[in-house]
Amino acid sequence: MPGEFALIDKYFARPTPSAVLGPGDDCALLQPTPGKQLAVTTDMLVAGTHFLPDTNPKNLGWKALAVNLSDLAAMGAQPRWVTLAGAMPSVDEAWIAQFAEGFFACAAEYGVDVVGGDTTKGPLNLCITAMGEVEPGQALRRDGAKPGDQIWVSGRPGLASLGLAHLQGRIKLPEPWPRLCVAALEKPRPRVALGLALNGIASAAIDVSDGLLADLGHIAERSACAAAVKLVQLPHLKELAGSGETYNAELRRFALDCQLAGGDDYELCFTAPGTQSLAIAQIAARLELPLWNIGEMVAGPAGEVSVFDPDGKPVEFARKGYDHFGNQA
Amino acid sequence: MPGEFALIDKYFARPTPSAVLGPGDDCALLQPTPGKQLAVTTDMLVAGTHFLPDTNPKNLGWKALAVNLSDLAAMGAQPRWVTLAGAMPSVDEAWIAQFAEGFFACAAEYGVDVVGGDTTKGPLNLCITAMGEVEPGQALRRDGAKPGDQIWVSGRPGLASLGLAHLQGRIKLPEPWPRLCVAALEKPRPRVALGLALNGIASAAIDVSDGLLADLGHIAERSACAAAVKLVQLPHLKELAGSGETYNAELRRFALDCQLAGGDDYELCFTAPGTQSLAIAQIAARLELPLWNIGEMVAGPAGEVSVFDPDGKPVEFARKGYDHFGNQA
Repeated sequence: MPGEFALIDKYFARPTPSAVLGPGDDCALLQPTPGKQLAVTTDMLVAGTHFLPDTNPKNLGWKALAVNLSDLAAMGAQPRWVTLAGAMPSVDEAWIAQFAEGFFACAAEYGVDVVGGDTTKGPLNLCITAMGEVEPGQALRRDGAKPGDQIWVSGRPGLASLGLAHLQGRIKLPEPWPRLCVAALEKPRPRVALGLALNGIASAAIDVSDGLLADLGHIAERSACAAAVKLVQLPHLKELAGSGETYNAELRRFALDCQLAGGDDYELCFTAPGTQSLAIAQIAARLELPLWNIGEMVAGPAGEVSVFDPDGKPVEFARKGYDHFGNQA
Repeated sequence: MPGEFALIDKYFARPTPSAVLGPGDDCALLQPTPGKQLAVTTDMLVAGTHFLPDTNPKNLGWKALAVNLSDLAAMGAQPRWVTLAGAMPSVDEAWIAQFAEGFFACAAEYGVDVVGGDTTKGPLNLCITAMGEVEPGQALRRDGAKPGDQIWVSGRPGLASLGLAHLQGRIKLPEPWPRLCVAALEKPRPRVALGLALNGIASAAIDVSDGLLADLGHIAERSACAAAVKLVQLPHLKELAGSGETYNAELRRFALDCQLAGGDDYELCFTAPGTQSLAIAQIAARLELPLWNIGEMVAGPAGEVSVFDPDGKPVEFARKGYDHFGNQA
C-alpha cells in the first residue's frame, strides 16, 4: 500500500499552469494579477454532518470544490487557485481515485488549479480553501444592500433539499423532478459567471447554502436593514405538486419549506437598485439562467426577513436555516 | 447555548487591519502587495493523529497556527493572512475560548490576521491555510540544492520528540531538559525571521516536521542529488544523557534517534554554497539562533540520505520519518 506522499503525488499532483510552483514544496507559489484583490474562502465538510459516509466519492469530489467556488461566485470573484486537505480513516485507493476524478472535473470546468494540499489519517473530513480575484471595489459584499433595492435569486432554490428528502424516502417526487433535484444536490453548479456579471450591478450578494431566508437574513443583518419576500414572486415549483385531481397539498407545503429554508443550493441571492432591472434581465438571458425578483429590502430591524402571502399578510416560518451545531436559528 | 454564527463572532472575529474585508462575508478580501508572490500552505490537524484529544487547548491553538507559519518560514515568506476551519463534536465554550487565546497569541506574535473560517460539527479536526508574501525568485524551494552545498539545521531538532516521550513516561529526562523539550513540543516557534534572512542565501529549505533525515530527503529528492550527514556535526545533546558515572547510554541513543527522525520540530533545514558560511554565521548571531552545518549535498541517487560516524563509516537508521498513514518510510 503506497504511503502518504506517493498517494498525494499519484492522484493530486497535476499540472498547475496558473501557479509559479504547485504541490510538493512547503508552500505553493502564486503570482497575483497586478492590481486585483484576492478573495479567499475556506469550508470544512465532515462525513455524517455535511454528507453521508457512503456518498458516491466522485460526486463528493465535485461538490466539495463546487461549494467553495460558490463562495467566490457570491463575491463576484474569478476562481483561480484551491488547496485541499483531507483526513481519511484508511487508505482506500479506489475511493481516492474517484474523489479526485470528481474534484478535478470541477476544477477543470471552472478553470482553477489545485496548488497544494495535505493528507492525513482521521475521521473522514475535507477542507478546501479557494482563492479568486476581483477588481478593487467590485466585490459583491453582504453589506451593500439599501432599503428599496430589489431582492433577486437565481435558479430554483430548494431543489437540493427536495432531492435529499427524495433519496431518504421522506417524500416521493413525481417525474421528471427526481433527476433534477438529485442533480442539484449532488452536482451543484456554482454561479461563477453570474457573480462576475453582477460586478458593478448588484449592491450585495450571498450564496444560498444555509437556506434562502437565512442567507437573505445575513445580507439584511450586515446591511442594517430588513427584507420583505413575496411568496407569489418565488420561483415556480407548482408543477411539482401536480394539479387538479393529482394536486398534493402536503408536497406543495414541503416544497415551499425547502425553497425558503432548505440548504445546500448554491444559487445566488442578491440585491440591486430597481434601475438595474433591465441589466439583470439581460444577464439572465445571456447566461440562460432564470433570475427571480422575489421582494425588496426595506427599512426595519437589521436582519429581519418577512414573508408575505398574495394578500400582503405576513406568513410565519418556524425553520429558517441550518446551524451546524444543531440549533434551528 | 449560542449558535455557530454567534460563536464565530464571539471568539474569532477580531480586527483584521491587513485585510480589505475580514470574516463575516462569503470570502475575505485581501490586497496583495504589488509585485510580490503569494506563498500558500494548508495543514490539517486531527485529534488522535496529530495531538491528544485532551491537549491543553491554549497550547493547541498556538501550535496549530505555528506549524503553518513554519511552512511559510521554510519558503522564506513573510506571513500575512490565515484562515481557520474547525470541526468539534460539541460546543465547549471554555475550550474554544482557550484555543482562540493560543491561536491569536501566535497570530499577534507573527503579525498575521485571521481573515476567515468555518466552524462545524464533527470529530475534532483543525484545518489552517496560511498565506505569506515573498519577492519573485527569492522563495526558498526544495529543489535548488546542488552537490557541494553545505547542509544546515537551526536550533536543536529532536527536542519535541523527547518532550513527547517524557510526557508519555517512555523516558525520564534530567533537569533542565523536561521544560525545554516540552516547550519545543507544545509551543514551537516557527523560524520566520530565519526564513526571511535566508532569502538570496540558501539554495533550498524545508521545515523539520517529519524528522530531520526524512525532510532532508525531500530536499535531496527534489534537487536530484544525495545528502551526507556527519553524526559528529549534529547539534550537541550530549549533556542530556549525563556523563561519567551518570552517563545513560540508552537515553543517548534515544536522543540521537529523536534528533535524526523525530518529527514535530519546526526547525529549518537548509542548504547553501560554502561561500555563504560567513553570511550564515552572521544571521545566527543576529537572530541569537544556533545554526549547525551538519553535512553536505553530494552527487548520488536522488533523495538518498546517508549518515556517517566520526570514522567516516555509514550508520544505518531504521526509522526515517513519520507517515500519517502508518507506514515507516
